[in-house]
Amino acid sequence: MLAATQETSAIDLIREKLTQAPAILQEVGVDCWITFVRESLECPDPVLPLIFPYSLTWQSALLVTRSGERIAVIAGHDAEAVESIGTWDRIEGYLDGVREPLQRLIAELNPQSIALNYSADDYMADGLSHGMYHRLREYLPEHVDRFVSAERVIRAVRGRKSPAEIERIREAITTTRQIFENTAAFVRVGTSEVAIAEFMRAQARDRGCGLAWDPAMCPIVTSGPDSMLGHAVPSESITVQPGRILNLDFGIRQNGYCSDLQRAWYVPEKGETQPPKDVQRAFDTVQRAIDAAIKTIRPGVPGWQVDAAARKVITDAGYPEFDHGTGHQVGRCAHDGGGSLAPKWERYGASAEIPLEVGNVFTVEPSITDVAGRGYHAIEEIIVVTEDGCEFLSQPQQQLWMLDVG
Amino acid sequence: MLAATQETSAIDLIREKLTQAPAILQEVGVDCWITFVRESLECPDPVLPLIFPYSLTWQSALLVTRSGERIAVIAGHDAEAVESIGTWDRIEGYLDGVREPLQRLIAELNPQSIALNYSADDYMADGLSHGMYHRLREYLPEHVDRFVSAERVIRAVRGRKSPAEIERIREAITTTRQIFENTAAFVRVGTSEVAIAEFMRAQARDRGCGLAWDPAMCPIVTSGPDSMLGHAVPSESITVQPGRILNLDFGIRQNGYCSDLQRAWYVPEKGETQPPKDVQRAFDTVQRAIDAAIKTIRPGVPGWQVDAAARKVITDAGYPEFDHGTGHQVGRCAHDGGGSLAPKWERYGASAEIPLEVGNVFTVEPSITDVAGRGYHAIEEIIVVTEDGCEFLSQPQQQLWMLDVG
Repeated sequence: MLAATQETSAIDLIREKLTQAPAILQEVGVDCWITFVRESLECPDPVLPLIFPYSLTWQSALLVTRSGERIAVIAGHDAEAVESIGTWDRIEGYLDGVREPLQRLIAELNPQSIALNYSADDYMADGLSHGMYHRLREYLPEHVDRFVSAERVIRAVRGRKSPAEIERIREAITTTRQIFENTAAFVRVGTSEVAIAEFMRAQARDRGCGLAWDPAMCPIVTSGPDSMLGHAVPSESITVQPGRILNLDFGIRQNGYCSDLQRAWYVPEKGETQPPKDVQRAFDTVQRAIDAAIKTIRPGVPGWQVDAAARKVITDAGYPEFDHGTGHQVGRCAHDGGGSLAPKWERYGASAEIPLEVGNVFTVEPSITDVAGRGYHAIEEIIVVTEDGCEFLSQPQQQLWMLDVG
Repeated sequence: MLAATQETSAIDLIREKLTQAPAILQEVGVDCWITFVRESLECPDPVLPLIFPYSLTWQSALLVTRSGERIAVIAGHDAEAVESIGTWDRIEGYLDGVREPLQRLIAELNPQSIALNYSADDYMADGLSHGMYHRLREYLPEHVDRFVSAERVIRAVRGRKSPAEIERIREAITTTRQIFENTAAFVRVGTSEVAIAEFMRAQARDRGCGLAWDPAMCPIVTSGPDSMLGHAVPSESITVQPGRILNLDFGIRQNGYCSDLQRAWYVPEKGETQPPKDVQRAFDTVQRAIDAAIKTIRPGVPGWQVDAAARKVITDAGYPEFDHGTGHQVGRCAHDGGGSLAPKWERYGASAEIPLEVGNVFTVEPSITDVAGRGYHAIEEIIVVTEDGCEFLSQPQQQLWMLDVG
């Protein structure tokens, strides 16, 4: 595993995941893992960036075996670029189609189980399209009964973050914190949600960073009771006003890894030196909910227990329950798949049942939708699961900030 | 249909596609078309940007019916943003999961055929993941035998470009031409492939444009016989040298639409005022191949016939055949799916058999891999299929340019 302090390249991180994979295949009892893609730029398998740095055009099979072989079956037109990466021991280039070389290879390897990237529950392990699954059935008719879901493989390869990966997430968080600070200094009473969003996006761009999610909703700006809720688009006409809560949900992608944080400010009325009691109570309740989640997190605990602990604090305080999970994994993506800290609602599938593992990085983000007509309030922190619990990767916001409105 | 000259917004273009869709459903005999996605940022269905401007987080079903209804079944947390778009007549928000509202809706609509986004042949119609297909089977057990591939729907909605779409592609081409011109003025003998690539990417960035494909390979720079071939990564150490061909393959994404063009220069030796005969002959052969393709293109012709016409010119001239198709569609994506101008190789699936339609936009890009040890040579133009043939959207390169090496 790469040391956290060492300078690591994008290819180093990919090599690390490819090195991690065979032991995981052994652990879950899979002989061969195939990532099968085409036109991966427009039809990306979310696994690809973990194990491969470029897009692939025609049908391409990337195989990793339990014994550690790495074999790429790809169109010859893509082959020189793949050779230049240096991570694939064997490259089978074709002109006509993938069928013949893939059949020959599988006959040679004779794997008793073939893990494919499909999963009804885990979107990050579900990059194989239905049409491509059909093709594989057609290409490997004698092996169809050996096909299994790669969800356990992908969950481990993606979810067990290495020190080098955690360091990158930490760096993305540090940059995000600076952007929050600059934003708080920029905002005045009357600043529109759109102006705040544009300022934050420019701050990310000026630092050479991407956004962690859909730019139309990154950041989500809620500046009072009239703001759009949920995955929201900032408004031109809604502005920051005294007596309300300003909540910002923002994340960046820096060196391939993401942050996802929420910070909150109270916008004081003239003469107010501290938040009103109803606002302070909401902040304190969210803090206690985060605390309850943190205390529940340790390896082996299923995510729904963490969610239940946080959710109970909110509802016990008399607020309605929030309409989302308490947290999700963060990594190369803001929503990084695998287990989640979510209720057992149908939409979370089996993700809420999955036991936490050391190295999993999660958000913790309980919320209150309506704080006495003053707006939405949430705080979102990021933690990493450790041997005996968890630790913050974010510097937690421990008090409700008063926006300096000049 | 939107006039080409009219100022159109991103939402206008989406509305236009949603308006086009019901007539296409009638034409292909489909009652209901469902785009079913989750976490569409990391697991995008390439159909989504055609009909929806944002990403969607939890399981979301976007239905268009033959009679023109547009219904979105989505998590309540996403609902306010979807309402704000204004293109969905009916929004069913859920808390727990999509199953119950979707079952209820399908029972109400009772479609005899349900088109889903899967296709073994057309990657752009294959955005439904295998895991999500399983979920739909589970949610709609009584309707499984009504599931059909939406490939014909998507092929028509995506492939029949409107005047407003063609205008955007034209604008992307114009910008690309300016970038080629500036690049030719920038390049000197000794300029590395990486320096050329960085220059061109900066030119796109400075104009607020994205790249049309994987930045690692956009542009593809081939500056002589030692360059990487195919989908290639530019080299630090390989530089522009006299007596060689400089070939650039580049595309941008501007206002949501792409270009994809190849241009070629000969780098003269001291005192040379025109290209050597072997280079001129390669250029002329590629021109004749493009010409042969152009003359074959008209509505109703399957793409393989166009490919065969261009390919024959190259091989008749004694060059080996190129290892890719003669052309692909261009639109929101550089590789825009549907029918292709490709040989009947397995890797092109049924795409080579599909008859061309009015409004299809294609590249035409025959190539010669090795021109007498002086490098790779190709020209790539873009055409639109018209009622009685086709017309260029690019200003074709009609002579081999001599690079001005100062």
